[in-house]
Amino acid sequence: MIRKELVDDLKIKWRNIQREMNQKGFDACLLTMGVNLFYVSGQIFNGYFYLPAAGDPLFFVKRPNGLEGDGVYYVRKPEQILDYLVDLGIEKPRSLLLEADELTYNDYVRLDKLFAPEKTGNATAMMRDLRSIKTSWEIEQFRISGRIHTKTYAGIPSCYRSGMTDLDFQYEIEHLMRRNGSFGLFRVFGTNMDIFMGSLLAGENAEAPSPFDFALGGAGIDPSCPLGANGTLLKEGIAVMIDMAGNYTAYTSDMTRVFSVGKLPALAYKAHQVSIEIQQEIEGKALPGFPAADVYRVAEAIVEKAKLASYFMGTKQQAKFVGHGIGLQINELPVFTLRSKDVLAEGMVFALEPKFVIPGVGAVGIENSFLVTARGVEKLTCAEENIINLE
Amino acid sequence: MIRKELVDDLKIKWRNIQREMNQKGFDACLLTMGVNLFYVSGQIFNGYFYLPAAGDPLFFVKRPNGLEGDGVYYVRKPEQILDYLVDLGIEKPRSLLLEADELTYNDYVRLDKLFAPEKTGNATAMMRDLRSIKTSWEIEQFRISGRIHTKTYAGIPSCYRSGMTDLDFQYEIEHLMRRNGSFGLFRVFGTNMDIFMGSLLAGENAEAPSPFDFALGGAGIDPSCPLGANGTLLKEGIAVMIDMAGNYTAYTSDMTRVFSVGKLPALAYKAHQVSIEIQQEIEGKALPGFPAADVYRVAEAIVEKAKLASYFMGTKQQAKFVGHGIGLQINELPVFTLRSKDVLAEGMVFALEPKFVIPGVGAVGIENSFLVTARGVEKLTCAEENIINLE
Repeated sequence: MIRKELVDDLKIKWRNIQREMNQKGFDACLLTMGVNLFYVSGQIFNGYFYLPAAGDPLFFVKRPNGLEGDGVYYVRKPEQILDYLVDLGIEKPRSLLLEADELTYNDYVRLDKLFAPEKTGNATAMMRDLRSIKTSWEIEQFRISGRIHTKTYAGIPSCYRSGMTDLDFQYEIEHLMRRNGSFGLFRVFGTNMDIFMGSLLAGENAEAPSPFDFALGGAGIDPSCPLGANGTLLKEGIAVMIDMAGNYTAYTSDMTRVFSVGKLPALAYKAHQVSIEIQQEIEGKALPGFPAADVYRVAEAIVEKAKLASYFMGTKQQAKFVGHGIGLQINELPVFTLRSKDVLAEGMVFALEPKFVIPGVGAVGIENSFLVTARGVEKLTCAEENIINLE
Repeated sequence: MIRKELVDDLKIKWRNIQREMNQKGFDACLLTMGVNLFYVSGQIFNGYFYLPAAGDPLFFVKRPNGLEGDGVYYVRKPEQILDYLVDLGIEKPRSLLLEADELTYNDYVRLDKLFAPEKTGNATAMMRDLRSIKTSWEIEQFRISGRIHTKTYAGIPSCYRSGMTDLDFQYEIEHLMRRNGSFGLFRVFGTNMDIFMGSLLAGENAEAPSPFDFALGGAGIDPSCPLGANGTLLKEGIAVMIDMAGNYTAYTSDMTRVFSVGKLPALAYKAHQVSIEIQQEIEGKALPGFPAADVYRVAEAIVEKAKLASYFMGTKQQAKFVGHGIGLQINELPVFTLRSKDVLAEGMVFALEPKFVIPGVGAVGIENSFLVTARGVEKLTCAEENIINLE
């Protein structure tokens, strides 16, 4: 059932998981969240991936019907996994990793009772760590997403017409994204992290705080979807920040650009330039071994020197990070916060997004996706970085 | 912080929750999932809703900044909830309902340790039961969604051009939906239930089984998004089933219609007519007190009499339900399966979707959303029900 062209890639991933399990002293891990199943099999299915600390993985599939291959067994319920292990002569694991930050309480308890291991560990934390270092196939997926993302952004000015609202503009961009192959759906880690195709913020709406842990907010169009565009008229002197997803493969690139309706106040251009400076500074430092917390510190120092701290990452509510890992989910590890203990490593892919909100104008700044290599970063999102005047 | 215009509606909901808590013997419930928070406050926020078995609710808010009102307290972490309860002279609950089918294992354990109740219960199950009976405000939201949904479906033929693929067609329909005010995002209950704006299935792709627990499948455009349209050319003789969300308010109506490219084989029209018959039969029976399982039985009996069982709800993989409640999530209670213990009640809103997959042709059948009233059902989705020829 695993995708044939991915066999080598998947074997690397299975071995990395086994190396971690052995280091942590676990006999097996059992995964069931969609992104983890995709990571270890190359496709989303409904079921379980069981990997012992040594040997081959087993795929326990509920749906879809028709999957075949080595180690594939159909189950209706998790209790059947144990029956199969007995049949296969595989010992019940005495220590087991389960997705403790993703499984619902009731699902976790059911699995825990079923296997009754002496020790359980958190497969979510382990998988998020492992997934932060991308394989060569994954890196190629990012390059494809980044290229189409860049092409889509080049088409954004053609989506604009005078007199539009932010929503009108966003609908045209979404339509362009889909015609360029956007999957529409993209995935986010964490409870209650709702977002639809990305965010477009114009004018004062960029100041509206949101309940979600994204870089910026926006009031949205309804109290049930309180994020992003809210019907703001795109009029002279406002900035439009576009942070729409790069989901043209399963690996989502992340890019933000700013457009203006006419000319903006000088402060907006100044802050935008500081964002570009922060990126340049970090591009020079982001080598393997560089601490994620220092990425935040570098940004913070430049912002303070420019006396723009009160505009940085929001006004009424300020995000405490300047970037994050990306992958099958838009918010992977590492996270660039002061409290992060992560360190950059070869194969990591991250989005850096130093942004400013200028009251009465809107949000400015850029976001790009970068691959960490031994020799420095490779930029994956290459659209024009200056503020583009739509008029 | 609660929406002023909803005060009366929210008070009804709080009292209903308290009535349930008292019946079940619980001192308090603590809710933190987005849809439940919207249900009890009229808006999505990041934080907790605490309701004692008697008295007023408390809103513990993490984000967004700036919410104010009776019972609103800002917290950074759940541990502060207990500090506030002490300050307010509220006794720590000895029995507590938590969202056991939605909270992650680690989040649940944190709250459970914090409150250390003698008894815990499942707030997910309770809330899903309560949410299945809609208030008059909620019913009005459905009527609005249903009207715009109907208007959008009337525009579907204008989205079609000869030579399109299913994806081309879907992108135009999505664009129309958004211009008509679709929120884009809609919510689904359950782990790994990924879907984007709905489903469009053309020709043989309607047979492709999917990992998700929706009525039908489709291969999708990538193994990471295995659902729906897959690039099928819309050519003479195939059926196109359109099941795109009615998310024009927070309450999502659900409607499916079938379009044809030219003329379809007689079997397709016959099966479509049987779907319409099933709806008519159930419309006559769906009064308060009618068992959800009997809805399935009525459909099954008509399907068997028509000798169409092998096409019903799929071919290679057949769904075992013919409909479901709708609300803030697309898959609420009741569910029309043989095993359901639910009974129809006044104020329930459900989608009925008897569908057939005809090999080599595509999917046929209709889906509509209905409100259960004392006098019978009110149909909320009123687009033309016959198969419409796009050519």
